[in-house]
Amino acid sequence: MAAKQGKSTRQENFANSKRHVTSYDVARHAGVSQSAVSRCFKPGASVSKKMRQRVMDAVKELGYQPNAIARGLITRRSNMVAVIVSNLNFYPEVVSELSARFTERGVHVLLFTLDHESDVSRTLDQVWQYQVDGVIVAAHLSDEEIQTFRERDVPLVFYNRSYTDLPVSSVSCDQVEGERMLVTLLAQAPETQSFAIISGPRDSVVSMQRTESALSRLRELSVDDITQTFGDYGYKSGRRAVQQIIEERGSVPDAIICANDMMAFGCMDELRFHLELDVPGDVSVVGFDGVRAAGWSSFDLATIQQPVESMTEAAVSMLMDRVDNHDLPPEKRMFSGVLREGSTVRS
Amino acid sequence: MAAKQGKSTRQENFANSKRHVTSYDVARHAGVSQSAVSRCFKPGASVSKKMRQRVMDAVKELGYQPNAIARGLITRRSNMVAVIVSNLNFYPEVVSELSARFTERGVHVLLFTLDHESDVSRTLDQVWQYQVDGVIVAAHLSDEEIQTFRERDVPLVFYNRSYTDLPVSSVSCDQVEGERMLVTLLAQAPETQSFAIISGPRDSVVSMQRTESALSRLRELSVDDITQTFGDYGYKSGRRAVQQIIEERGSVPDAIICANDMMAFGCMDELRFHLELDVPGDVSVVGFDGVRAAGWSSFDLATIQQPVESMTEAAVSMLMDRVDNHDLPPEKRMFSGVLREGSTVRS
Repeated sequence: MAAKQGKSTRQENFANSKRHVTSYDVARHAGVSQSAVSRCFKPGASVSKKMRQRVMDAVKELGYQPNAIARGLITRRSNMVAVIVSNLNFYPEVVSELSARFTERGVHVLLFTLDHESDVSRTLDQVWQYQVDGVIVAAHLSDEEIQTFRERDVPLVFYNRSYTDLPVSSVSCDQVEGERMLVTLLAQAPETQSFAIISGPRDSVVSMQRTESALSRLRELSVDDITQTFGDYGYKSGRRAVQQIIEERGSVPDAIICANDMMAFGCMDELRFHLELDVPGDVSVVGFDGVRAAGWSSFDLATIQQPVESMTEAAVSMLMDRVDNHDLPPEKRMFSGVLREGSTVRS
Repeated sequence: MAAKQGKSTRQENFANSKRHVTSYDVARHAGVSQSAVSRCFKPGASVSKKMRQRVMDAVKELGYQPNAIARGLITRRSNMVAVIVSNLNFYPEVVSELSARFTERGVHVLLFTLDHESDVSRTLDQVWQYQVDGVIVAAHLSDEEIQTFRERDVPLVFYNRSYTDLPVSSVSCDQVEGERMLVTLLAQAPETQSFAIISGPRDSVVSMQRTESALSRLRELSVDDITQTFGDYGYKSGRRAVQQIIEERGSVPDAIICANDMMAFGCMDELRFHLELDVPGDVSVVGFDGVRAAGWSSFDLATIQQPVESMTEAAVSMLMDRVDNHDLPPEKRMFSGVLREGSTVRS
C-alpha cells in the first residue's frame, strides 16, 4: 500500500528531483551561455547584476542544484575532509563530535579506519585520490608521510598526537601531566609500594608518552618495584596483562597503571571476578581517557578525562583556518586533562 | 632538526607528488591527444594496444595518478558511499566494519551522524550534493524520503531497519524473534511474575518492534503485571527508568527488559549500586544488541548478539550489487540474533 502511495506522489517529487537539471538546461532556459551560468556559481567571478538575475531566475524555476563535486573542481574546494582514525572503537565520541562540527560548517567527513597504525601509508594513497580540503589524523605518521602533506599542500591537523620536533599542527591532551597526576594520586597511600604498568601497543606514541611519564614520576618518588607489560588497548588484553604481571612477579602488585580505560576495565574485571580481589582494597587501578564507561558505577574508574569537546572544536577550527589560508603557520594546542578520582584508588 | 631533514628529502618526495601531474602532461609526454589519455582510464573505451602502451609508459614515468573525483565525473561513479547513522556511540563496531568492507572494495565512506533520527531529511539534502554511488541508512526514513532515492536513482540499503510494506532493500536482525527468546528465558523461572520494559526513544522503529514483540510474548504467557517506560538508549536513561518504574509500581519488578544493552548497563548499575539489589538474585535484567561490554564480567548480560559481521557484509555487497546494476529488485535480508544467556537472569 505504502509503495502505491509513493507512486502517486511521483509527479510532485519529480519537480524536486534536481539530478536531471544541469547547468546547460539553466543556460538554455535563461538564454545565456553555459560559462555565464558557471561564473554565477564561482566565488569572485565577475558577472553583471542583470545576468545574475536572469540566471538565478532560471535556477529557481528549474530547481537547479549545482553539483558539489563539479563545483569543487571549479573552486578547488571539495568541502570534504578526511578523518583517519586507528580504531573506531576507541574513538566513537571523537569521530561523532568531529563529524557534527564539520557538518555545522557545511563540510563532510570521509572516514578512514585502520586496524593497525602502520597501515596509515597505504591509506594515504587512497586519501590523495580524493580532493579533500584537509585531513585530521588520529594515528601515527612518519616524517616522510608528513612531508607528503606539505608537498601536496594539503592542510593537516593531528588529533591527540603531538610531534614536539616537527612543524605540524596538532591538538592533544597533555599525556605527561595527566599521567603524573594519576601516579601522584596512587602514591598518596603509603602502603602502595609496588606498581605494574600495562602499556598500549608498542607502535603507539601516546602509550609511550603515558608510560614514560609514569615511569619518570615513579622514579621521582623513589619507587623501584615496577613491572611492565603490554596490551593492545582492548579489554581482553587488560585481562591477559594481569595474568602476565602475576606470573612475572609471583605476586599481585599494590597498584596497576593502565595506558587507557579499556584495558583498565579488563584489568579490574580480571582482578575482581577471576582472582576475587577487591579494587581498591587489594589493588588500586587507574586508566586514561575518561571514556563514558569510566563513569559507570560498575567501574567508577580513576582516570584522566580528555576534554573531547574542546579538543574536537580546536581541531576542526584549526583545520578550517588552514583550508582558508594555506600559509598559516603550524600551531600546537595542548589541553590539560581533568583528573577523575573515581573509587578505584585506595586513599 | 627533523624539519630540516624533511627539507633535504624534498627533491625525492617531489617525484612522488602526483598532484601536479595532469592528464595534459601525460598527453604531451606521450605525444598523443588528451582525449586518448582519458580513454585509457575509462572502463570499456576502445584504445589500441600500441596507444595504451605509449600512454602507460608516460603515466609511469611522470608518476601520474588519475584524480578520483574527476574520473567520477567521467564514469559517473564517485567510488564514495554515504553512511548515515543516528548516533555513532551505539554503532562504533558497525561503522568500523562497514568502513573496512567498503575500503576493501576501493570505495570510501562519507559519514553522516544525526543526533535525532528526525534530522535525517536535513541530512539528505547534504547527501544529494555529493555524487555518492549509494547510501546505507541506519536511521528512520519517511515514505517520501525513501521515494526521493528512487527519483534520483540512488541505491539505498537500510541497516537494521526493515520496512515490511515498502519495496526497499534492508539488512536487519530479527528483532521479534530475538525479543521472544529473551522473554522466554526470563519466564523460565516460575517466581518471575512481574515485568518492566524500558523502551528506547519513541521515534525508534527498532525499539517499537522489540517492545511489541516482548509485550506479545508476555501476553501469550498470560503475564499481566507489566510496567512500561521509555529511555533514550543511553546508560543514564536506563538508571532513570529504574527509578520511574519503582515510583510507578511502588515496588521492584521481578524482571526488567531493556530495549538495548546500554540502557541495561545503566539499569543494572542502578539496581546494584544505588538500590543495593542483587542481579539476578532480586531482579533479572536483559538487553539487546550484544555490544562488547555485554561480555565483560562486570555485566555478563543476557542479550541478543547481532551478527554484525554477516550483517555488514550483506549490506555492503547488496549495496554494491545495486551500484553495478540499478535495475536489481529490492531485497530484504534478515539475520537471526544469537541468544547470549549471560548471568543476569535467574534460572
